[in-house]
Amino acid sequence: MALIVQKYGGTSVAGANRIKNVARRIIKKREAGHQVVVVVSAMGDTTDDLIKKAYRINEFPDKRELDVLLSTGEVVSSTLLAMALHGMGYPAISLSGAQAGIKTDAAYSRARITSIEPTRITRELEKGNIVIVAGFQGVTEDLDITTLGRGGSDTTAVALAAILKAEACERYTDVDGIYTADPRLLPEAKRLSEIGYEEMLEMVTYGFKAIHPRAVELGEFYGVPIIVASSFKEKPGTLIHKEVSMEIRNKVRGIAHDLDVAKITVVGVPDHPGIAAQIFVPLAEAGISIDTIVQNASVKNITDLTFTIEKSQLNVAMAVVEPIARSIGAEKCVGDLNWGKVSIIGTGMQNAPGYAARMFDTLSKENINIQLITTSEIRITCIIEEARVKDAVRALHHAFELDKEA
Amino acid sequence: MALIVQKYGGTSVAGANRIKNVARRIIKKREAGHQVVVVVSAMGDTTDDLIKKAYRINEFPDKRELDVLLSTGEVVSSTLLAMALHGMGYPAISLSGAQAGIKTDAAYSRARITSIEPTRITRELEKGNIVIVAGFQGVTEDLDITTLGRGGSDTTAVALAAILKAEACERYTDVDGIYTADPRLLPEAKRLSEIGYEEMLEMVTYGFKAIHPRAVELGEFYGVPIIVASSFKEKPGTLIHKEVSMEIRNKVRGIAHDLDVAKITVVGVPDHPGIAAQIFVPLAEAGISIDTIVQNASVKNITDLTFTIEKSQLNVAMAVVEPIARSIGAEKCVGDLNWGKVSIIGTGMQNAPGYAARMFDTLSKENINIQLITTSEIRITCIIEEARVKDAVRALHHAFELDKEA
Repeated sequence: MALIVQKYGGTSVAGANRIKNVARRIIKKREAGHQVVVVVSAMGDTTDDLIKKAYRINEFPDKRELDVLLSTGEVVSSTLLAMALHGMGYPAISLSGAQAGIKTDAAYSRARITSIEPTRITRELEKGNIVIVAGFQGVTEDLDITTLGRGGSDTTAVALAAILKAEACERYTDVDGIYTADPRLLPEAKRLSEIGYEEMLEMVTYGFKAIHPRAVELGEFYGVPIIVASSFKEKPGTLIHKEVSMEIRNKVRGIAHDLDVAKITVVGVPDHPGIAAQIFVPLAEAGISIDTIVQNASVKNITDLTFTIEKSQLNVAMAVVEPIARSIGAEKCVGDLNWGKVSIIGTGMQNAPGYAARMFDTLSKENINIQLITTSEIRITCIIEEARVKDAVRALHHAFELDKEA
Repeated sequence: MALIVQKYGGTSVAGANRIKNVARRIIKKREAGHQVVVVVSAMGDTTDDLIKKAYRINEFPDKRELDVLLSTGEVVSSTLLAMALHGMGYPAISLSGAQAGIKTDAAYSRARITSIEPTRITRELEKGNIVIVAGFQGVTEDLDITTLGRGGSDTTAVALAAILKAEACERYTDVDGIYTADPRLLPEAKRLSEIGYEEMLEMVTYGFKAIHPRAVELGEFYGVPIIVASSFKEKPGTLIHKEVSMEIRNKVRGIAHDLDVAKITVVGVPDHPGIAAQIFVPLAEAGISIDTIVQNASVKNITDLTFTIEKSQLNVAMAVVEPIARSIGAEKCVGDLNWGKVSIIGTGMQNAPGYAARMFDTLSKENINIQLITTSEIRITCIIEEARVKDAVRALHHAFELDKEA
């Protein structure tokens, strides 16, 4: 008998029928002889609806109050799922984040789990209960409710799997696994049966939305195998774990893309120490998260500084950067929206040369201009025109032979 | 500076505008120099909507899970009210029943408050916060969430007023006070400026829905003055407290009525000890709450036993009673729906004769037949035909001169 942690996303529990469907899946696992702990998100659009309610009352809602408000969404779905299991004749109990012993810091709306005290969960499992835990939430030392930010329920699930030493953390949602590219963009993309944590982390960070990066990091740190699968279809999904098989190490594993890229270039920046800080510290203080930064080689101590951000943040970022650009004597500031990102990812890259060359060559043959390049040990990312992202994904998917096998 | 506990019902917080309106009322009290603790119900139909959600999943929802589910309604309204106060520039914090230190027994769906540990409330008041407490809920020793049953938010408010030694508990809802009769039935009914706990208790138990009897009992026990007033209009409301003025003691204070009465008569019951228990124990076990019981004087050891219940419970009650009636050798069982109740209430009655006579005489002149009579020290109730209840209320209101003054 193994302990399994399952996590069901918001679309999987949107409505009575879907909740009953989830209950049947849980029962299957239980009938196979396992103890089951289930983490649920709020039903469908509940969280967004609650946020709207708050903003109708106050344009700048207090973060503590907002966290308490949002935490009710997961409490509702967890109780309904417990009731569904009871209706099918199985013992189950719902626990809030606080009851499940999930302690966090007091950083409302983006709290970090500091520790988990799983005695209540363990006691309920010993009683024979299926334990349903409200995801996305925890409690501070002062017993104030916090939420873990976007992707929080994934984090709850992996953290519980770690502390309970579960055999695996199964994450069910409306996608049936990790693909070699986004199947909505590229129908011939293939589902991967397994993938390593690091590759997965690069893929979710660079465009795949299948699971939150925090959850993958946590899974890697504690060595929790994570299975990403569909809550609607009976398909095996993708196993995220430590080692991928020897045979597939030397390969690109997936093509990630992201259409949400805006670019700002500060032209003619005097190149001396401290300039970058003068630009990026105020941006960070304005809550703008910078993605890629590229500084061209300096010519006569004058350089161009380019960085990318989310499209929705372009106006705010320009408002922050323009006065700074003037004050440091830069020539001008250019911002525009029509950019995208395409990345090739695979642990194989770190030991073998030639991947970058093949990527650039492929894009060149498609007549796709590369604006910026960034790399990690297991990833190469090119910023290209948004309108050409789809062509790039298709060409790279073919060039790296991802359409041949998964 | 006094401490005031205010309680706002579901209609008072149904929607953003009403929540802001409530916030303005709270601020008025605060600006008058008071510390304010506010208890809120769930917004509008929230509780009923959550109950429907549960029953769509499971026809017999587990009571523990249902309590957790329902408790979210008050948490939502309390956070939104705190946000509204912030928006108007006032410091406020919402607390769940658990955070407010409200401990209960584990009788889910109808839990009783066992103790209140108000340290968190006191700390927040000392910080200068307006404290918003989610009504209707508490927490067991095991940190499981409970609800207090219907009227629970009233109970929360009065209990907090008692433990915090508040100057008063102000209960705001869509009625602007206690009237000499239901103003929807009798437009000439007068608002009472004050009323004693016992009279109020009889009035709410016998048909007035203005406040829950548990809250009145609790208020009486701890000597908490309760003010019932409208959250929409600026009117003084009615003060429920220990002593009414000398001048108005010797009077009927109000006419209560109730249209929700069904009657069952077990005809020809052999009159020997234990018969009543044989009938009423199974009814109690079936969850049927019996209102009035009348047993006619025995003739040749054969008697008729009549009792009244809520209309919605008639079918279930008949199904329980009929087989018992057969087994004890009763002649037959007759149940019907078309009954109502009218009561005159006033502490004056306990010291002065003639009230019953005047009541019966008044009904007789109106040609209203009395089916059953029950009395307490300060109340006389007649069960009459439902169709004649309105006539009875009007006639009694006039006969006891309630239309002359309040």
